[in-house]
Amino acid sequence: LKHLSGGFSNVVGFSSAGTHIGIKSTDKDFAVLFSDTVCTTAAVYTSNQIQGAPLLLTKQHLANNNAQAIVVNSGIANVATGEQGVKNAAQTAELLAAELNIKVDDVIVASTGVIGPQLPMEKIAAGITGIKAQLGTNEDFAEAIWTTDTRKKEICVSAHGFTIAGCAKGSGMISPNMATMLSFIATDAAIAEQELSEVLQACVGTSFNMMSVDMDTSTSDMVVVMANGRVPAETQQFREVLEYVCQELAKMVARDGEGATKLIVSEARGAYSQADARKVARSIVTSNLVKTAIYGNDPNWGRLIMALGNSGAEKIDQAAIQIWINQNLIVDAGAAAPDYDSEKLSAILAANEVVTITIDLHQGTENATAYGCDMSEEYVKINAEYTT
Amino acid sequence: LKHLSGGFSNVVGFSSAGTHIGIKSTDKDFAVLFSDTVCTTAAVYTSNQIQGAPLLLTKQHLANNNAQAIVVNSGIANVATGEQGVKNAAQTAELLAAELNIKVDDVIVASTGVIGPQLPMEKIAAGITGIKAQLGTNEDFAEAIWTTDTRKKEICVSAHGFTIAGCAKGSGMISPNMATMLSFIATDAAIAEQELSEVLQACVGTSFNMMSVDMDTSTSDMVVVMANGRVPAETQQFREVLEYVCQELAKMVARDGEGATKLIVSEARGAYSQADARKVARSIVTSNLVKTAIYGNDPNWGRLIMALGNSGAEKIDQAAIQIWINQNLIVDAGAAAPDYDSEKLSAILAANEVVTITIDLHQGTENATAYGCDMSEEYVKINAEYTT
Repeated sequence: LKHLSGGFSNVVGFSSAGTHIGIKSTDKDFAVLFSDTVCTTAAVYTSNQIQGAPLLLTKQHLANNNAQAIVVNSGIANVATGEQGVKNAAQTAELLAAELNIKVDDVIVASTGVIGPQLPMEKIAAGITGIKAQLGTNEDFAEAIWTTDTRKKEICVSAHGFTIAGCAKGSGMISPNMATMLSFIATDAAIAEQELSEVLQACVGTSFNMMSVDMDTSTSDMVVVMANGRVPAETQQFREVLEYVCQELAKMVARDGEGATKLIVSEARGAYSQADARKVARSIVTSNLVKTAIYGNDPNWGRLIMALGNSGAEKIDQAAIQIWINQNLIVDAGAAAPDYDSEKLSAILAANEVVTITIDLHQGTENATAYGCDMSEEYVKINAEYTT
Repeated sequence: LKHLSGGFSNVVGFSSAGTHIGIKSTDKDFAVLFSDTVCTTAAVYTSNQIQGAPLLLTKQHLANNNAQAIVVNSGIANVATGEQGVKNAAQTAELLAAELNIKVDDVIVASTGVIGPQLPMEKIAAGITGIKAQLGTNEDFAEAIWTTDTRKKEICVSAHGFTIAGCAKGSGMISPNMATMLSFIATDAAIAEQELSEVLQACVGTSFNMMSVDMDTSTSDMVVVMANGRVPAETQQFREVLEYVCQELAKMVARDGEGATKLIVSEARGAYSQADARKVARSIVTSNLVKTAIYGNDPNWGRLIMALGNSGAEKIDQAAIQIWINQNLIVDAGAAAPDYDSEKLSAILAANEVVTITIDLHQGTENATAYGCDMSEEYVKINAEYTT
């Protein structure tokens, strides 16, 4: 596995651009990814019952598992916008298809930002005019899809002859329940439709669906992978690399959670079932009380016990539980470990930007890992001031 | 229905005391409620799979639905304390039974505070010695059970000839899933065991179980009602008054949520089923993004749409949704109401300590109400600094 710097431009046949079209006051807010051939494409969508107009349109366009371009705006989510919102999403696809000379239903449309307002279609139209000439001139796609993000979430790896490049946006409304943010992935690997879809589902299950910033699953989010098929690929090898890409992106999204100062990696081991392992791992990264304790460099293992007790896992025996923070045993047999030293642990937490919490339930052999972040005053500040 | 000032002393046959025994540095941390006769008693316990030693002991002692005293300490939860914790809870009951000259299994034991440390049994023993003489000399029970609480949560009402007095502690680790804090209720009403238990379950279902501060269900919490049977009571009338008491206490707990500046009352109407109504009402008060928006006086209805879309309710039709904030229509037919004025709404939010969010799903006739609070930077501060 080899890491490459940069993004989509590493994958032969793809080009992209990110630009500012005036939806946001100054930041980049418009991005296009283009493939010079029609790609086998799979997607996973939000589980929120309220879904944005762009997402509904994209589902229609991907009914045939083909796509050739992705257009994304940030700043306005085009959610809860009624018939006009549906028309605006469709018009965006039509304008881009005309600009790029491709089929309308090969365009994927995504929007992220404030719920409610209509898209400024004159700005969208002006932004699309001439975008073809900008493709490949910059690597700003990953930044142009930001809302409250502060770090670029981009990865590109090559292995077994094929290359996978992906990026994501995150920050808020991030919770583990299907495709909980925007992520766009391009590859030159040749993977059949059915397999691409199955592999993406599986990889999302161990990455984005195991990540939480705030338990609030957005109405707009999706993960898309486009495969142009230039390089023969063995499905299992492709799956392993795609899983790695998705997990790394999920970690980047969690680390850049709104107001976050630390990445939390929660490992559940020895669970009775895979469902139990996933519930316990997630329970740690979704607890406000755990998240605030980690922010305070407080090895408050009582909150870890509380959180896993709330996980809904089928088999938990308090007397069997062991917990480590960054490889230091802090809970043994369900109570404080004999040599537990809260001051030492607090110093370890303060010194590390990545906090790994490992829980062994001793109820079986199933394992799962979840990704999250701490919660700071800044999280509240960002979200108390977001639209006003 | 008549409100009485004061607490348990209004109910003939009950006396109580709250005092400082040195578990906390200066605040009151020890409370006893005593009935001069054995009471029919019912309780509801936390749904957390990890449960504290006091709770396990209380379950045993209440197997016969009888109790005569409640002893509570704050500061240390006696959870995840192994065999020693179990012994300490039992010893607390024994010491109090001896002091009050009652049966050990008529003593209810509750603890709240930090998870992990052992109770200081010498302080507990010293505190119990002579407590009998203090009973009835003060009304500090409701304050002595505080952890991070800042307001006394106490209510006493009389109706139909009987009296119900209750208090609660809350503040953190509060989430709707069975008995999510400590609440102790005393009445002189005569209610049979089975009925008392059923009525309490029902009342908790529409009060404490519909309240959330932070989705983190504690390991220690319980609601107990003791009825000494002096006054004949009709069950349905008793149920109505007890429900009122529980709902008022739930509102007080929510309003005093850690760092809270506002009470949020979330009313779901027109739901397809009672389950849907409860899910939708709860989804509003459990969303961090809704809570932070309310804190910021931001009528961010997009987050309300997002939250109810995540509720898990069976029947939601976005195009039918109406939402009001404090009786002002803000969402109609699933989009911004025609005369929605965010500045006016923001001023209304700023001017009101109680924010009522009313959602009509137009899918049926079922209604439910949930109680919560906003989320401020102070919530993070309190929980980042709680033990360190």
